[in-house]
Amino acid sequence: MGKNAIVGQSGGPTAVINSSLAGVYESCKKHGAQVVYGMCNGVAGLLEQRVIDLSTVLKDDLDIELLKRTPSSFLGSCRYKLPDWQTDPQVYEQLFEILKELDIGWFFYIGGNDSMDTIGKLSEYGASIGSDIRFMGVPKTIDNDLMITDHTPGYGSAAKYIGVVMKEIIRDATVYGTKYVTIVEIMGRNAGWLTAAAALAKGPDCEGVDMICLPEVPFDVEHFIDKVRALQAVKPSIVIAVSEGVKLPDGRYVCELSDDVRAVDAFGHKNLTGTARFMANLVARSLDTKTRCIELSTLQRCAGHMTSRTDVTEAYQVGGAAALAAFEGHTGEMVALKRISSNPYQCVTELHPISEVANLEKKVPLEWMNEAHTQMTDAFLDYAKPLIQAELSPLYIAGLPHHIYM
Amino acid sequence: MGKNAIVGQSGGPTAVINSSLAGVYESCKKHGAQVVYGMCNGVAGLLEQRVIDLSTVLKDDLDIELLKRTPSSFLGSCRYKLPDWQTDPQVYEQLFEILKELDIGWFFYIGGNDSMDTIGKLSEYGASIGSDIRFMGVPKTIDNDLMITDHTPGYGSAAKYIGVVMKEIIRDATVYGTKYVTIVEIMGRNAGWLTAAAALAKGPDCEGVDMICLPEVPFDVEHFIDKVRALQAVKPSIVIAVSEGVKLPDGRYVCELSDDVRAVDAFGHKNLTGTARFMANLVARSLDTKTRCIELSTLQRCAGHMTSRTDVTEAYQVGGAAALAAFEGHTGEMVALKRISSNPYQCVTELHPISEVANLEKKVPLEWMNEAHTQMTDAFLDYAKPLIQAELSPLYIAGLPHHIYM
Repeated sequence: MGKNAIVGQSGGPTAVINSSLAGVYESCKKHGAQVVYGMCNGVAGLLEQRVIDLSTVLKDDLDIELLKRTPSSFLGSCRYKLPDWQTDPQVYEQLFEILKELDIGWFFYIGGNDSMDTIGKLSEYGASIGSDIRFMGVPKTIDNDLMITDHTPGYGSAAKYIGVVMKEIIRDATVYGTKYVTIVEIMGRNAGWLTAAAALAKGPDCEGVDMICLPEVPFDVEHFIDKVRALQAVKPSIVIAVSEGVKLPDGRYVCELSDDVRAVDAFGHKNLTGTARFMANLVARSLDTKTRCIELSTLQRCAGHMTSRTDVTEAYQVGGAAALAAFEGHTGEMVALKRISSNPYQCVTELHPISEVANLEKKVPLEWMNEAHTQMTDAFLDYAKPLIQAELSPLYIAGLPHHIYM
Repeated sequence: MGKNAIVGQSGGPTAVINSSLAGVYESCKKHGAQVVYGMCNGVAGLLEQRVIDLSTVLKDDLDIELLKRTPSSFLGSCRYKLPDWQTDPQVYEQLFEILKELDIGWFFYIGGNDSMDTIGKLSEYGASIGSDIRFMGVPKTIDNDLMITDHTPGYGSAAKYIGVVMKEIIRDATVYGTKYVTIVEIMGRNAGWLTAAAALAKGPDCEGVDMICLPEVPFDVEHFIDKVRALQAVKPSIVIAVSEGVKLPDGRYVCELSDDVRAVDAFGHKNLTGTARFMANLVARSLDTKTRCIELSTLQRCAGHMTSRTDVTEAYQVGGAAALAAFEGHTGEMVALKRISSNPYQCVTELHPISEVANLEKKVPLEWMNEAHTQMTDAFLDYAKPLIQAELSPLYIAGLPHHIYM
């Protein structure tokens, strides 16, 4: 009898994280895992022994197909940071005892920076006690801020969603031909990859966004108003894409200038929403124009109805590649995507030690912006366009996308 | 030589208003109009003689197909209210002079309440001066608040969009299994049709929204908090759909309780956004839970990437029916949709005098809510479900929906 595999999902949900789960599951089955367990709510749930035999919920090919097209984390997620294993081994002892009871040979964790930290610590602790469990990381984040990998599964679909809705917002905003400034707030605390994707809207059928504000560029309030004034002198409807994480030159978040921001969360969590609202208020007070702010909020990370087929496929493939690597004996590594060529687009998977990825953050290179830092250049578009190609329609039942649901 | 036709779009844009434009255009051509003009920015643009020969921009069948799948108002829109024609005839004299110069025989206006007011006044003035121009109204509004017609083109697609994103929001909000209250703000100043559409999310694969707050039901702050507390005692993640127009028992809008609401618009327009934010703040202060507010904003009215095929088809048909009626000699009327049956869904067009529609407002019947006024009943679902059936995919080019663009 072979051993069993276990897989968990961690961090923020995406539209394609379940496609990676499908890739891990099918690949583990193919390579001979007896049972493939799913952790409910990641490592936090595993500590409570909340696991499920995935074959009981993924019964046939239709279930797998539904899983690939279901947004958010099918297994549930967590934000759980493991302590240092050398100074605080107790939780590791507990986890490895649970893994032993489940007869686990292969352990997979689908997530971003923090999740890779988990894989790194578990594989190090495992090595220190002579465990033969293989630990593999599967990259996932809409933020696209993981090092080493060309891009992260989840980013392509979120970028496509942002490109699509920016086109629609621009079209909507110009309809009256009157003076209007629309400010759209996009996720991304420290890295502006998602906000940069607003540049994708531009084309022969769309004039594109008029300004892009990334967190990589210090935000100067007066310069901003001057720029908006200059833009509106030429055309009445101005649409601006702004990252939730834009910061003032002194390092404070722009949204901290808004009095009521922290009131949303009564428990002291620094909530970054409110950036676009603050900026829209500022523009309305400074210029003779109507304004509107739009927060894309969680819509941008879970839009299963608007995914990139390229992204869905790659998410599935990194899951499969992780399983293959684990069964070949690799451990403490993450599957990365390596781009061979942008046009034609060719991309392969490769393996990297988790230490090259965990707890690091990849930002948007400022060379991919114009000199004024208000627009993305063709270099960024060459990078991003292949990632949003082709569509995968949800399975519609009675007019609504059907999801697999536990 | 036959005469010419002219068509305009007015009021807020929708995802299918251009399908009605396509219906009017093709039907006018078929019935023998020489030229079909489009008014740029509705009657306001017509007064400035900004018109376009539509055959110069709709050159072939592909352009028509793109038009049907392009959101927002292709011709641009306006919010222009004609004065009383008996006391203030000057603008009418000017308009009819322009129509005479253009040799117009048939005049079409696609819009909501205010636009039907325009058709009513123009046809009355026309009759008073013995004009033979035929004036027909084509219904359009996501708000679904027009009298007489079973529903309005535009509502089905907006309702479908809302059902789809509510499913995705619910799925996203439950992922950590922690206490969370998500409040989603949906358009609808006085009528709750769009907010009611959040009820469509519920199904075997989705637990649905936990509470619906319509503007038809006075909003009691204390009762609301009590209800949320009771809901969260049973399950951690609560999702609430609230209309931007919910009002306190004293008639004030809930969003007026929020200090900074009116700051967004510097020119005194009572902007209703901020309702969900106010309520999320309220819940965070009152209950031991994290909260999030999401405003669907203009995304819900212009989501050309998520339309109901039923809606697109009906929008096209009411345009065609209006042209047929005008060529048969009708004037001062609006095309309405009359439902024959919900299951199987059968719906036909009919004509009604504009006076039965203009400046009136159809609200959601409270019999279609449960006794506590927190959920929609099956009667509403029977009404709404046929309107969201089937999909019409955008024409994708390089990963993004392609639009026709002037």
